[in-house]
Amino acid sequence: MKFDDYLELYKTKTFESMNLYSQAREIFPGGVSHNIRFFKPYPFFTQKSKGKFLQDEDGNKYLDFWNGHWALILGHSPPRVMKKLRKQLKNGTLFGTVNKASLKLGWEINKAIPSAENIRFCSTGSEATMYAIRLARSATGKRVIAKVEGGWHGFNTNLLQSVNYPYEVDEGLGLIEDEGHFVESLQFNDLERSLKVLESIKDDLAAIIIEPVLGGAGCILPQSGYLQGLQEFAHKNGSLFILDEIVTGFRFSYGAAMDAFTLDPDLFTLGKIIGGGLPIGAVCGRKDIMKLADATIEGDKSSYCSIGGGTFSANPLTMKAGYNTLKVLKKNSNIYDKLNTLGEISRNGLTKLFNELKISAQVTGIGSLFMVHFLNDKVKTINNALDAALSNKEMLYNYNLALMANYNIFFLPGKMGAFSNANDRKDVDKLIESTRKIFESVNNKKI
Amino acid sequence: MKFDDYLELYKTKTFESMNLYSQAREIFPGGVSHNIRFFKPYPFFTQKSKGKFLQDEDGNKYLDFWNGHWALILGHSPPRVMKKLRKQLKNGTLFGTVNKASLKLGWEINKAIPSAENIRFCSTGSEATMYAIRLARSATGKRVIAKVEGGWHGFNTNLLQSVNYPYEVDEGLGLIEDEGHFVESLQFNDLERSLKVLESIKDDLAAIIIEPVLGGAGCILPQSGYLQGLQEFAHKNGSLFILDEIVTGFRFSYGAAMDAFTLDPDLFTLGKIIGGGLPIGAVCGRKDIMKLADATIEGDKSSYCSIGGGTFSANPLTMKAGYNTLKVLKKNSNIYDKLNTLGEISRNGLTKLFNELKISAQVTGIGSLFMVHFLNDKVKTINNALDAALSNKEMLYNYNLALMANYNIFFLPGKMGAFSNANDRKDVDKLIESTRKIFESVNNKKI
Repeated sequence: MKFDDYLELYKTKTFESMNLYSQAREIFPGGVSHNIRFFKPYPFFTQKSKGKFLQDEDGNKYLDFWNGHWALILGHSPPRVMKKLRKQLKNGTLFGTVNKASLKLGWEINKAIPSAENIRFCSTGSEATMYAIRLARSATGKRVIAKVEGGWHGFNTNLLQSVNYPYEVDEGLGLIEDEGHFVESLQFNDLERSLKVLESIKDDLAAIIIEPVLGGAGCILPQSGYLQGLQEFAHKNGSLFILDEIVTGFRFSYGAAMDAFTLDPDLFTLGKIIGGGLPIGAVCGRKDIMKLADATIEGDKSSYCSIGGGTFSANPLTMKAGYNTLKVLKKNSNIYDKLNTLGEISRNGLTKLFNELKISAQVTGIGSLFMVHFLNDKVKTINNALDAALSNKEMLYNYNLALMANYNIFFLPGKMGAFSNANDRKDVDKLIESTRKIFESVNNKKI
Repeated sequence: MKFDDYLELYKTKTFESMNLYSQAREIFPGGVSHNIRFFKPYPFFTQKSKGKFLQDEDGNKYLDFWNGHWALILGHSPPRVMKKLRKQLKNGTLFGTVNKASLKLGWEINKAIPSAENIRFCSTGSEATMYAIRLARSATGKRVIAKVEGGWHGFNTNLLQSVNYPYEVDEGLGLIEDEGHFVESLQFNDLERSLKVLESIKDDLAAIIIEPVLGGAGCILPQSGYLQGLQEFAHKNGSLFILDEIVTGFRFSYGAAMDAFTLDPDLFTLGKIIGGGLPIGAVCGRKDIMKLADATIEGDKSSYCSIGGGTFSANPLTMKAGYNTLKVLKKNSNIYDKLNTLGEISRNGLTKLFNELKISAQVTGIGSLFMVHFLNDKVKTINNALDAALSNKEMLYNYNLALMANYNIFFLPGKMGAFSNANDRKDVDKLIESTRKIFESVNNKKI
């Protein structure tokens, strides 16, 4: 089979999705409610999900490595969490008031990650990073935010800068130039160059914000010393160091990635896993900074930093989903060992396979996150977002689509995969075997 | 009883909440995850909610007029919607992919509000208005946004301007001056003055954004011709007219308030009710503008407007909650008649009562939304946010707390109330009778 044959196969298997997608285009711009959920020729429509599977409207059942934007560390609809949610449905989905469920989740996060001295819950990661920036500007009285090329912190106006290659070009229409003036880009894993840029903006530098592992940009690990170097600069300069742990929080261990990387951020953000599959975001960090968000203090508007919240913040359904997800993770300490092992044997197995097949590829990742990058003349190794952007993305898409079409294995094309507790060793074997068959089937010369 | 006695009564009834709140202050800035959820001496902690009631951790059961930030038009945990959610819990809470449930909600909104030619779902109202602004700037190539003093469009950086009195002062720390340059304030219900301001910024005016009824600022209706005048200016000027219908959408009738006010916005936002008690936001409007958000079109970054979405956008739990809420509203056409009648008899009954008691007050509102304002030497009538801000807020707080303390009736202090389908005529009677008793009990001379 050629890659084109897999494409045809996908189409024959997803007739109902094709039909639905053409209807979706009539009502939703691009037919989606999140740009990355589109892929060619059209995305399949999920009808239901359970454990490690997504089932589409044509009845195809996919082994899911996307896991709800990597949020579902226990897989889809984990029974224990769902049981608690069933009960909560009877007792209210949205109090619109303070509640003990939010305290319990807050305490649990605080116990697991002591740097979360204070926490503010909101409803999305995009809100959380926006509020972290506002707090950083409040705490320092400075304005400029440094982020890395390819760093993804959501669709908020403050941080929608230098996300996609070419990084120096605005991220689309409608972002006024003046907003961009206060965001400066660093090149991931190039500490020398990053420090030079930071040096040039140090007088007005409010904060550096960075993911400990580049997520959306390609599952790329920091080189030893890079993050520490940035943190050191920030602290010496009186600027804040903000870790965006929305993807990495509770992903590798019962806590945050900052421990593994021996970092001590002033502020950090959480999301995804802590919501247990329901909408959440959280800003966490030093009490002396977070207290700027305390609007109960008597005083005029200049006495505090106004951040959400929002209508749905700390709603009891999300709070219960998050708390009970953490409880399962905490009580079953073997889960992280298992997930990290699955990640490791996948990376090793795929790397070995590509070597054997003489396909120039690099499998990046850590813990239960992993991603295949196909190399080319321009890119010999994946070290930052630019490398990932210039790698052979077409091959990656073809590979992901072939997995979907013939082997019912789902990666959101072009994005990293994640293991959940619903997975086991057989899933890794299936992935590696399917990968082998795909590349053996295609005419290598034509790739 | 004096108001101080009601305060003491509240404290004696909410011992557990007091205890929890002091613990909450240790972990959450201000002890809350949404600033407005704090009120003195401390907010009660809700343990569960059902129908028209909130029950706190001390076992007090409150008749709830807050209704989850006015989102819960069917009351807490409406059985039909909960039944669908129980089923959905088994079938996935977060697919992370396109799905038919989002199509069904999209179609239903489009049928009810034809101006929703295209829709993009996100997870909060704050995101929705932020994306509407980005789209407006994309469509017009202009930068300035006009909003009214007191207009509330969420905590996003773009629109957190002139929300609280004094309006010319920044909304707290961390908002850099340059962001404020592109937001201009109008005075609600003063068309002549508003048009003068608009005239002065017309060359760079991207859009006017406004709620058809001022919500957070005090439940204030537009005077005849005001909104139409703004819309006319926008359209003559080649700027967009954006209605923020997050509160008003599906609140007064099966559709949006734009119909009642004979408005035809280019874009509008929805939230709250359309999520059926789960997190949601939506940008809706003209297809030719919304299509700018179509990132599937081949082209460089300058060919589209990048908006969310987000991880939780169009998740099946929210989609099902929203769809089934709308379905209940549609099939039971008497609901709106009932809710609007409850609102009307409350406004009339309270107005009559305050006249009778010779208390200078104005009850504002429309449909099932209503709010009491106590007048004073400075404010003789409530016509805009400034009037509401300068009215006797202390009396309002005292009144709201007395209702809570002695009559188990909950309004978020200082905010408007809303009826849900769980209410009936007896609730209005209870509210009016309780109000009478409170004001008869306090020494009027000391108020």
